[in-house]
Amino acid sequence: MGKFKAALLQTHVYSNKGKNIEKAVKLIEKVSREGADIAVFPEMFICPYDNSCFREYGEEEGGSAFMAMSKSARENGIYVVAGTMPELVGDKIYNTSYVFDRNGEKIAKHRKMHLFDIDIEGGQRFKESDTLSPGQEVTVFETEFCKIGLAVCYDIRFPELSRLMAMEGAEAIIIPGAFNMTTGPAHWELHFRARALDNQVYTIGVSPARDMEASYHSYGNSIAASPWGNVLCRMDEKEGYVIQEIDTDYVKKIRNELPLLKHRRADVYELTKINK
Amino acid sequence: MGKFKAALLQTHVYSNKGKNIEKAVKLIEKVSREGADIAVFPEMFICPYDNSCFREYGEEEGGSAFMAMSKSARENGIYVVAGTMPELVGDKIYNTSYVFDRNGEKIAKHRKMHLFDIDIEGGQRFKESDTLSPGQEVTVFETEFCKIGLAVCYDIRFPELSRLMAMEGAEAIIIPGAFNMTTGPAHWELHFRARALDNQVYTIGVSPARDMEASYHSYGNSIAASPWGNVLCRMDEKEGYVIQEIDTDYVKKIRNELPLLKHRRADVYELTKINK
Repeated sequence: MGKFKAALLQTHVYSNKGKNIEKAVKLIEKVSREGADIAVFPEMFICPYDNSCFREYGEEEGGSAFMAMSKSARENGIYVVAGTMPELVGDKIYNTSYVFDRNGEKIAKHRKMHLFDIDIEGGQRFKESDTLSPGQEVTVFETEFCKIGLAVCYDIRFPELSRLMAMEGAEAIIIPGAFNMTTGPAHWELHFRARALDNQVYTIGVSPARDMEASYHSYGNSIAASPWGNVLCRMDEKEGYVIQEIDTDYVKKIRNELPLLKHRRADVYELTKINK
Repeated sequence: MGKFKAALLQTHVYSNKGKNIEKAVKLIEKVSREGADIAVFPEMFICPYDNSCFREYGEEEGGSAFMAMSKSARENGIYVVAGTMPELVGDKIYNTSYVFDRNGEKIAKHRKMHLFDIDIEGGQRFKESDTLSPGQEVTVFETEFCKIGLAVCYDIRFPELSRLMAMEGAEAIIIPGAFNMTTGPAHWELHFRARALDNQVYTIGVSPARDMEASYHSYGNSIAASPWGNVLCRMDEKEGYVIQEIDTDYVKKIRNELPLLKHRRADVYELTKINK
């Protein structure tokens, strides 16, 4: 069971939440028929990426978008990484990714751990921490193919998190994200290739399609990189999808030939999760 | 004192140790006249990169190559990162980089911490640990410009080490290295860009020129990358040098606009040196 197919669903995000859910359900059905084992949606795939929208479009765990994704996963017998949606918990809002298995059971949940606050001279300004609360957990889930790490967008910028996921056994890392027109061209591909190479895992990044009418211009360019650091596929900025084969035997081959994880100097430095 | 000039000296390595030293001394004089503040030599710049040569070409700390580099630093009033040379300590051999200040004083010493053992199907095979012993220390030294991290070749593949150097205040990381014709084209640039971006530091990699007569074919391509992850300069495979300006004010600007080091979740994960 070394090979599986991941569908990178670079969707257009409408201002109508129901319409986004409806389209997502149709896409799951479509890529499932085409042989995908896991359908991956982008960050904020049901909600404009705008601080002013997160509460209105958000829902508690088990809300309408959550239930639709669970049902669609079950009906099509496919894993669904439900991009992210604003998760409401009392006064707080998290940027949360849920994963459903082939039975529609929620098997993982990652709340974006690093919040995106940036102020580039002449470029992008965005302060997520104005509205969002950060997650506290490193997230790795099991499938019949391999363990898969899950993180969200800005999380990829922190090598510690990907490393911890690899140390917990992840052979692929999935990251719904929405880099912008400043950071996207400069850093998106570099980060996905570097995390893949450093940890000898597949990385998969799925972004919303670019919408120049929206307040936030997503870079698009959904991508998959191999454990050798190559780009396997990379989309442009338009709506669409790619089905990418992932081969966990290749992870083992690379880790055997160039044993980076084994060569870590665990006697000199230590990377650990803090247990509270 | 935000700006300084680093000379990347991509030398041809002769089989004659004395000839290599003599040439290095001339190069220091030359780039010093051209305004360089720090001269950086490649990994094993006085010794063919071959397990069978390390003992013969090696020397204890304070040997002939060491003394020549110290003297040349002092006479030209320039910092010298003396690439690496085999350092003999009793039965052991380390792959060691020495740094001399403008007075010729040794101010840093890094023993390669991660040893390069690789066996790629149809590609490179090399087992450094057959002859070399690994270093145990993270190395950062002070200059009047900024703190600078120092590591050797394969060390760059481990994100923990660069991160620790950045956490100790490094704003530039210098890495004498000698990637080969398998790993060089695939990974050399990617690693230097990624470590620079992740840690918002300048990275400088200096490699021997390629010599197809030698047993080990160095990739060359000496490189500098900016804290924004851009390639600032990159050589080809031939002998030569580049003098690259480094601007520590730019490090501060990038760290201010996109505060990655501040956004690390030090409450969720911890990267520490193990004190023994």
